Amino acid sequence: MWAVGALRRAGLALAAAAALALALAAWRRRRRRRPGREVLFFPSRPSCTEALLAEAAGPGEAARLCPCPCPLPRGDCSLSRLLRRLLSARRSLEICLFAFSSPQLGRAVQLLHRRGVRVRVVTDAQYMGLQGSQIGLLRQAGIQVRHGQEDGYMHHKFAIVDRRMLITGSLNWTTQAIQNNRENVLVVEDAEYVKPFLEEFERIWEEYRPINYRFFPKDNK
Amino acid sequence: MWAVGALRRAGLALAAAAALALALAAWRRRRRRRPGREVLFFPSRPSCTEALLAEAAGPGEAARLCPCPCPLPRGDCSLSRLLRRLLSARRSLEICLFAFSSPQLGRAVQLLHRRGVRVRVVTDAQYMGLQGSQIGLLRQAGIQVRHGQEDGYMHHKFAIVDRRMLITGSLNWTTQAIQNNRENVLVVEDAEYVKPFLEEFERIWEEYRPINYRFFPKDNK
Repeated sequence: MWAVGALRRAGLALAAAAALALALAAWRRRRRRRPGREVLFFPSRPSCTEALLAEAAGPGEAARLCPCPCPLPRGDCSLSRLLRRLLSARRSLEICLFAFSSPQLGRAVQLLHRRGVRVRVVTDAQYMGLQGSQIGLLRQAGIQVRHGQEDGYMHHKFAIVDRRMLITGSLNWTTQAIQNNRENVLVVEDAEYVKPFLEEFERIWEEYRPINYRFFPKDNK
Repeated sequence: MWAVGALRRAGLALAAAAALALALAAWRRRRRRRPGREVLFFPSRPSCTEALLAEAAGPGEAARLCPCPCPLPRGDCSLSRLLRRLLSARRSLEICLFAFSSPQLGRAVQLLHRRGVRVRVVTDAQYMGLQGSQIGLLRQAGIQVRHGQEDGYMHHKFAIVDRRMLITGSLNWTTQAIQNNRENVLVVEDAEYVKPFLEEFERIWEEYRPINYRFFPKDNK
């Protein structure tokens, strides 16, 4: 009788342990949220993005700007999706861009800066001064911008939102590229990709410290 | 006594079921192979890639080319890793590139073509004729190449190996970009990324059919 009781208790204990293990596995599965993934292709069809930018700027701005009188169609497009991803930033935005001249994307970045997001921009020294570049406007708005003085191009085209979302691809942030070129942008939240890009950004950010700029190179007499 | 026996049997059955569930979960975890993921940053340090190309070309070629007498260091670098990924192709290689002038990458693509891999190349119409472009050599070797006649650039920089591995980023396949620029390349096997890029390739491949080329545009008198 004692043996039967012990067996029963052992069976129940085993069953309870197994049930606990199964519940734990289910909880872990739920916790392991699927990382956000998206692929955007360009050219993006022409579309009015005013409502999106105004909405992100707050109720006052939305009332002032909307409805926009322009004749462009409303609705979803690759540019609006890219804007939405950027505007989701709450704490930080690292931008590492060869060419940046899109007024819409420039406004989005300034808006995030005004909202208190810590924005840092790395760009290419030779392209940042071209006509239409947004870099001067970003600097004027108080956003930190750094560039190198290397022979090669700073040819990256990526951004990192809140240290968790990587936006990268072939797309320079120019109106020409957005509206006319065949381009791609990947949105990635997998840490295996986000982490090395964050490290690359910090590496370049340190190398491009303004204290290292040579305005009057010593060997140039 | 009957009730005790039933309880014991129920306990044992529960324990067996739980053990089975745990074993099944472990087997599933093992089966769900982690997709290959890699991030490469450029500039790539100078390195001799002859051994890699010769090895991929077969024993005869390896004996003829190796050891290479050049003074460049051997070993791992971003370019050799990119080459290794490309040379892993067994059945198909889709390439969609704005600019392609790297002799090493050109040799790798020709080698795959000779090995029976189905190679298809899409490129930019304005950049394919520039000095140093590999496109003419690829065509001469019998590789299918298509280009558009659009105003915008075909600015993609991606390749797809065996319809399962996507290689994409900011890097054009030029020696300038490989050796001097700040660039990135992602290697991705997740179907959520590979599939849309394959579809984008097929879409462009169809649009760029040679039958659509206008050598003497009708409106150009």
